[in-house]
Amino acid sequence: MFQSAIHCSAGYEHILHPTTMNTRVVKAEYAVRGRLVLEAEALAKELSKPDCNFPFEEIIFCNIGNPQAVGQQPLTFYRQVISLCLNPDLLKDENLPHTNKLFPADAIQRAQLALEATAGGFGAYSHSMGVEYFREQVANYIVERDGEGECDPSRIFLTNGASEGISKILQMLIRSPKDGILIPIPQYPLYSATLTLFGATAIPYYLDESKDWSFDIDNLQNAIQQARENGIEPRGMVVINPGNPTGQVLSNENIADVLKVCHDERVVVLADEVYQPNIYNPDRPFHSFKKVLNSLPNIWDTELVSFHSTSKGFLGECGFRGGYMEIVNMHPESQEQLYKLLSINLCSNLPGQLMTSLMVNPPKEGDESYPLYAKERDAIMSSLARRSAKVTNALNNMEGISCNTSEGAMYVFPTITLPARAVAEAAKQDLVPDTYYCLELLKNTGICVVPGSGFGQKDGTFHFRGTFLPQEDKINNAMDIMAQFHTKFMQRFTD
Amino acid sequence: MFQSAIHCSAGYEHILHPTTMNTRVVKAEYAVRGRLVLEAEALAKELSKPDCNFPFEEIIFCNIGNPQAVGQQPLTFYRQVISLCLNPDLLKDENLPHTNKLFPADAIQRAQLALEATAGGFGAYSHSMGVEYFREQVANYIVERDGEGECDPSRIFLTNGASEGISKILQMLIRSPKDGILIPIPQYPLYSATLTLFGATAIPYYLDESKDWSFDIDNLQNAIQQARENGIEPRGMVVINPGNPTGQVLSNENIADVLKVCHDERVVVLADEVYQPNIYNPDRPFHSFKKVLNSLPNIWDTELVSFHSTSKGFLGECGFRGGYMEIVNMHPESQEQLYKLLSINLCSNLPGQLMTSLMVNPPKEGDESYPLYAKERDAIMSSLARRSAKVTNALNNMEGISCNTSEGAMYVFPTITLPARAVAEAAKQDLVPDTYYCLELLKNTGICVVPGSGFGQKDGTFHFRGTFLPQEDKINNAMDIMAQFHTKFMQRFTD
Repeated sequence: MFQSAIHCSAGYEHILHPTTMNTRVVKAEYAVRGRLVLEAEALAKELSKPDCNFPFEEIIFCNIGNPQAVGQQPLTFYRQVISLCLNPDLLKDENLPHTNKLFPADAIQRAQLALEATAGGFGAYSHSMGVEYFREQVANYIVERDGEGECDPSRIFLTNGASEGISKILQMLIRSPKDGILIPIPQYPLYSATLTLFGATAIPYYLDESKDWSFDIDNLQNAIQQARENGIEPRGMVVINPGNPTGQVLSNENIADVLKVCHDERVVVLADEVYQPNIYNPDRPFHSFKKVLNSLPNIWDTELVSFHSTSKGFLGECGFRGGYMEIVNMHPESQEQLYKLLSINLCSNLPGQLMTSLMVNPPKEGDESYPLYAKERDAIMSSLARRSAKVTNALNNMEGISCNTSEGAMYVFPTITLPARAVAEAAKQDLVPDTYYCLELLKNTGICVVPGSGFGQKDGTFHFRGTFLPQEDKINNAMDIMAQFHTKFMQRFTD
Repeated sequence: MFQSAIHCSAGYEHILHPTTMNTRVVKAEYAVRGRLVLEAEALAKELSKPDCNFPFEEIIFCNIGNPQAVGQQPLTFYRQVISLCLNPDLLKDENLPHTNKLFPADAIQRAQLALEATAGGFGAYSHSMGVEYFREQVANYIVERDGEGECDPSRIFLTNGASEGISKILQMLIRSPKDGILIPIPQYPLYSATLTLFGATAIPYYLDESKDWSFDIDNLQNAIQQARENGIEPRGMVVINPGNPTGQVLSNENIADVLKVCHDERVVVLADEVYQPNIYNPDRPFHSFKKVLNSLPNIWDTELVSFHSTSKGFLGECGFRGGYMEIVNMHPESQEQLYKLLSINLCSNLPGQLMTSLMVNPPKEGDESYPLYAKERDAIMSSLARRSAKVTNALNNMEGISCNTSEGAMYVFPTITLPARAVAEAAKQDLVPDTYYCLELLKNTGICVVPGSGFGQKDGTFHFRGTFLPQEDKINNAMDIMAQFHTKFMQRFTD
């Protein structure tokens, strides 16, 4: 990829070389922007040239949850408030006559409130936890979301996306390779990569594909026991709900069971809840880990951290890298350590903090901007629900492919039963079988998905993760093209 | 600070507690937001109450390079472009009549170009290196700045501030506590904190206060030799130019000497050049490490990474967390590892990327926005130069205080000769002497500076770091108040 990077002098040995660098960096893997994506980007460059000759006209990126890169439009109100906050000259008296023509009154009012809440506007570092007023809005959202309980803004930390918070909590938990973190299989590869970088041992627990990717509690307890027998101390457990890459939404009961195990086994719960607004099946509503914990007085003191982000959900504002974490039952001195750790990077970016505060406090019924906000939100949500159903159905109609319904998030993670001769062909090319399948799909159709091996799967099974984020005409067309490809692929290896 | 964080259940032992967490986290120190600042923030809260009774009316924050928090105004053109990019509805035909009244034509044109350069606007994740068009602008800036040489945009990585890039390069370099990184004393505590977190050994080299904080090359070589004798392998060297906290600007010759040592000793150079635009003495211009390296053909293959940021310089856009690093002579496979490492966090925030692209490509002479831009820039720069001189002079007029002229950056780092009885009083209170001095200054005047012990200093010497960022009336007044405090403090301990 970077071959032409240096006119190497003969014999010079680099100080920084993969053979001499931190081996944890070399070992870390991140499939979401890995080989498939690098190949897809190279193809996209080729496609832009006039004389290229491919059997497709564009790359359809289904590798990553990046909605606005594939056509989703931002929500108008949020961007209005942000542009006013970042250019406060628009609020000067002499400009207001024009500004009033371009912006609704509630956006102007919101921007004024936000500006007053910062110490020096959006060009200044904030407190390392984030602007207090924004954290208060997050706290209000959590109370409203859960319909009960309390939330103290001094337990909220604003972060660059959810990843930053996750990384800091793991950094505090992990002391040596003898410390283990439970991660679901399949998982989002941020977790495996971060554990590798910090030198922890990943303790995999398998989600039950035959039961809509729900938890098997015996399985979880076995994983913990097994780890202990191997001298590994489980310190934390990652749960992703709604699921990535699985799209499952956990039931209240399933969450309660997980919390009980974590409490009894002395494991901190890391609840990745970044897809909480994206629920497609009203019979499977989102329950936050905190809310379920509040209903379990016997284990109320379970240590829990919940993560949310502006990137996911129907908002899809990935570029802002906004997010927050709520810490529950953390020891006050540990919280001081967390504060110090975040203060080394000073603070998360202020536009991202602002986007987070808007996400948790959208226009309310009666507000001038509410009708447009509601229309935009509902259009995105209903389209996502249609696309989820369309993609699941289309996949289930393909020979040898089986896909659970995506009840939430923005992904499908189907099983593919690959013919033995396809597996052999992959081996011949020194490729994992699902990587081979995904590369063939990319080269023949331009559709970019990520092999299941990047997320983890039961030995001998093959999957891929795809998003259903491309807009409806495109995703419908993509499923037709994929069906044709798949039929040919299967014929090629079974005839 | 977080005392009331939890209604602790009797006997419950936390899983995550300072005694059971990653000891590197507990050990890391970050003075810039440490004790002094926590005390200052607590005082600021008290001050806002009606019945408080302090000998001052406000806290004057001189602890951190955060210009807009203490009154500096953002540059108009940059904020105009950003607000258009983040709210592209303003560029729709039906809105343009009003938009044209609020924004100059060149801001509108710039915003259109920037929007076209992104894949899906500013709400989408970009390439993990940053938007290509923005990286091209950085590359153009570097060529123009150095007046020679080449710069390939594929060697530029856009990052969340400079800190993120610094952290990733150190993460790649450091394998074990046997790996050492050379850091200047005094240093910016990001470095010591990051080294502690990664478990590396800091190899201090002392800047020569008697020679305007320049490098003593013998001293540097001794530090390297000493480290080797102790079984530590020097892998990288941090240089901060213009200096933080020292304000020094290195000469061409001094930089060349450093590069030769690093080349011969096989050490990667990390050049922290985030203050490059802030130069107050025309006789001491800024020379980039890359430019000096280009003039040294015998050691052209020295591995070098240079960091820059939107937070520092006269721009002072800290809240955007924008920045870049340029890698020079990095092995292509190491660059692939760096790309992967950054891709785990997907990309730096897009508003910060945009701010970086604007910083390196300001309005040019002849552009509609140039006169206002130049006026704003010159006002900030000339005021900073006046404040630098004012503060240095005022400090040098105080008994027992001696301060080198700040030729660049935004800090002074004076020596204070403390009376023996003041040192004894500090010991009685279990405080480092300079921390005691800074606390007394804060409590008596509301002026918040950071003790030299947080940056490193020769044993038995005492310093503090102060910014000269508060606006002129305020900083002038603060120096008068400080002079009065200082006289009383010295009298108290010498009478």
